[in-house]
Amino acid sequence: MPETLFTNISQLVTPAPGVQRGAAMGDLSVIPDAALLVSGGRVQWVGPRAEAPGMVQEHDLGGVAVVPGLVDPHTHSIWAGDRLADFEARVQGVPYEEILARGGGIRSSMRATGAASVNELVALARPRLHTLRASGATTIEVKSGYGLDFRAEVRMLEAVRRLRRELFVMPTLLIHVPPTEGRTDYVRAVCEELIPEVASSGLAETVDVFCEKEAFTVEETRQIFVAARANELDFKLHADQFHAIGGTELACELGALSVDHLEASGPAQIAALAASNTVATILPGVTLHLGLPAAPGRALIDAGAAVAVGTDLNPGSSPVFSVQLALALAVRLNRLTPAEALTACTVNAAAALGLGDRAALAPGQRADFLALHSADWRDLAYTLGANPVRDVWMDGRHV
Amino acid sequence: MPETLFTNISQLVTPAPGVQRGAAMGDLSVIPDAALLVSGGRVQWVGPRAEAPGMVQEHDLGGVAVVPGLVDPHTHSIWAGDRLADFEARVQGVPYEEILARGGGIRSSMRATGAASVNELVALARPRLHTLRASGATTIEVKSGYGLDFRAEVRMLEAVRRLRRELFVMPTLLIHVPPTEGRTDYVRAVCEELIPEVASSGLAETVDVFCEKEAFTVEETRQIFVAARANELDFKLHADQFHAIGGTELACELGALSVDHLEASGPAQIAALAASNTVATILPGVTLHLGLPAAPGRALIDAGAAVAVGTDLNPGSSPVFSVQLALALAVRLNRLTPAEALTACTVNAAAALGLGDRAALAPGQRADFLALHSADWRDLAYTLGANPVRDVWMDGRHV
Ligand SMILES: [Zn+2]
Ligand SMILES: [Zn+2]
Repeated sequence: MPETLFTNISQLVTPAPGVQRGAAMGDLSVIPDAALLVSGGRVQWVGPRAEAPGMVQEHDLGGVAVVPGLVDPHTHSIWAGDRLADFEARVQGVPYEEILARGGGIRSSMRATGAASVNELVALARPRLHTLRASGATTIEVKSGYGLDFRAEVRMLEAVRRLRRELFVMPTLLIHVPPTEGRTDYVRAVCEELIPEVASSGLAETVDVFCEKEAFTVEETRQIFVAARANELDFKLHADQFHAIGGTELACELGALSVDHLEASGPAQIAALAASNTVATILPGVTLHLGLPAAPGRALIDAGAAVAVGTDLNPGSSPVFSVQLALALAVRLNRLTPAEALTACTVNAAAALGLGDRAALAPGQRADFLALHSADWRDLAYTLGANPVRDVWMDGRHV
Repeated sequence: MPETLFTNISQLVTPAPGVQRGAAMGDLSVIPDAALLVSGGRVQWVGPRAEAPGMVQEHDLGGVAVVPGLVDPHTHSIWAGDRLADFEARVQGVPYEEILARGGGIRSSMRATGAASVNELVALARPRLHTLRASGATTIEVKSGYGLDFRAEVRMLEAVRRLRRELFVMPTLLIHVPPTEGRTDYVRAVCEELIPEVASSGLAETVDVFCEKEAFTVEETRQIFVAARANELDFKLHADQFHAIGGTELACELGALSVDHLEASGPAQIAALAASNTVATILPGVTLHLGLPAAPGRALIDAGAAVAVGTDLNPGSSPVFSVQLALALAVRLNRLTPAEALTACTVNAAAALGLGDRAALAPGQRADFLALHSADWRDLAYTLGANPVRDVWMDGRHV
């Protein structure tokens, strides 16, 4: 790929590379009338147009704002079946227990996903991931977790691996739903069979657990994290979605990449996250879709934590197909400023995936970036119901 | 235009023609494996594919769901300038009074809009209206109301008239912001000069008033409604957004087409609307964007009112560029069912504009309809952050 100088950029807006904590989340670099030099899929230089190197092929972006490609650090983009009947029942006031009794709920997604082939899973996930990319996501995490058994979990991860050929997706092994009986044996098998298999095959580099009253206990989570570490995998956590039972504190103590959800987090959990290197990932789509309380995004930043934002794209609790909408919702529902929301969806989301090579426009970083429709980058946080992203580049290539 | 039979429709889903009240809002006709016969821009026939007339040119829709074109009954799509600095200040906690003192707020939109030519207003509004249409809106109301003086109001309405050549837009004269002094003279001039001019030039068929503590009083609203009626114009109202000061009761008494907002409506206003022929139009985008209470959509329907949903697209309180998102938000924020939300965005929204010739797929109705991406129409209410609308037809023409 030849060296290219992108010009006619009204504003080039970026956080500094690497995770940003607390007040630093609001510190963006805003360069008016900017240029961006890309070579070999990497950013070579950014700065005012007037100071740009000459003698280089130019690409005129038409006077719009440029921001880093966004990172969606939390999705369940692979599922089969649908949850439309559940949705209709829930908004009519049918309790989740009854939806489950009717054959709906998460177990219906597990049955359909467990019955699908890798080919079918790829075909179902592909348009969802392309929609997320069009909304600005140049890196997307995708979890397993709808498997009825270990074979189905592995098929989900194989589907993610297949999608890596066309999209930058990061696979995560999610230990999601405990079996109705024999959970001690199940957790032992996760630790002694599934995690070693996934680690040795390279199907995932991260293990996630759903730690909640109705899911895995803190002690079970600890066992799974210890197994992940023993297999040289990173780990992260779904915690404090409904009850703060101690998962967040455990994750911070053991050095998890992130703790995600946090709607039920109180001062103790906020303090633990602020004192740790663990990213606090909030998921405002769930708040909108289920009408449940919002995670304390503002309080987390004020306490000094590093906050990331994700779509949590999944059929039951967050049918949010746009990382831009997740960013915009974090401003409305979690009281982030537009600048904090951009940091949350870029470098902090990358940090939640253990990635430090992207999501900031600085020399050496991956040349993943977005040209907006607008000359003012704040339209990215302001717009609801339309896509402010005009064009997406990954590794310096227009996609 | 030749007669065309649209086939391979997984579901054809429609309310009955005309306004639907209370429980009837949930009664949709759902025809599986349907066909739709269109001729001369009108629906000729709908029914099961197996019963469709033969010997007609066919158009295969690919196995997806078809619903009527949506109607957006409340927008302020014409404005100049932007409110991005206001947005950023407000989410950082700056009070609206201080934003106004800094030169922001609605008066900044009025200054910029008042300074713009008709050509400029058309160029600014066109992409917004095309974005709304792509989201499913085949009929869109557009209000004046950012004029600093009567000439600017007329320029806004002239811009709407120009846009009628390419989109189905319905102009409304909005009496929006009282002058800081001389309001008695202002209201008299509205009634004796502006309304007669707009009526005689045909620039609008409806007059809207913002009735609120900080805007026009109930008595001023009554004078304006009386003038509208004397000039054979319909009328409608912005009321109960922050305070229920009696505007809703007045509008119901005088036979307004609709009362819009209703976030502050209580039992008395709900009862007045349920007992009247006036449509209750709710605007969930404002609830999301400003974080204010939601209008009592569920209670209005349960009381027997006819509820419509609109985007309220405007730069200050609802940057919502998708009628589909407004529909989806009404389910989450105002507790409508998906079926009620479809009725609210189709026949009831049309009724709020005084239109009975569209928004239901029945013989004689305008052939405005949508083909979705999905075989299940409920994706229209379920999806957040992506556009479930694949194709739009207006008057039987693909647009
Ligand atoms: Zn999740
Ligand atoms: Zn309005």
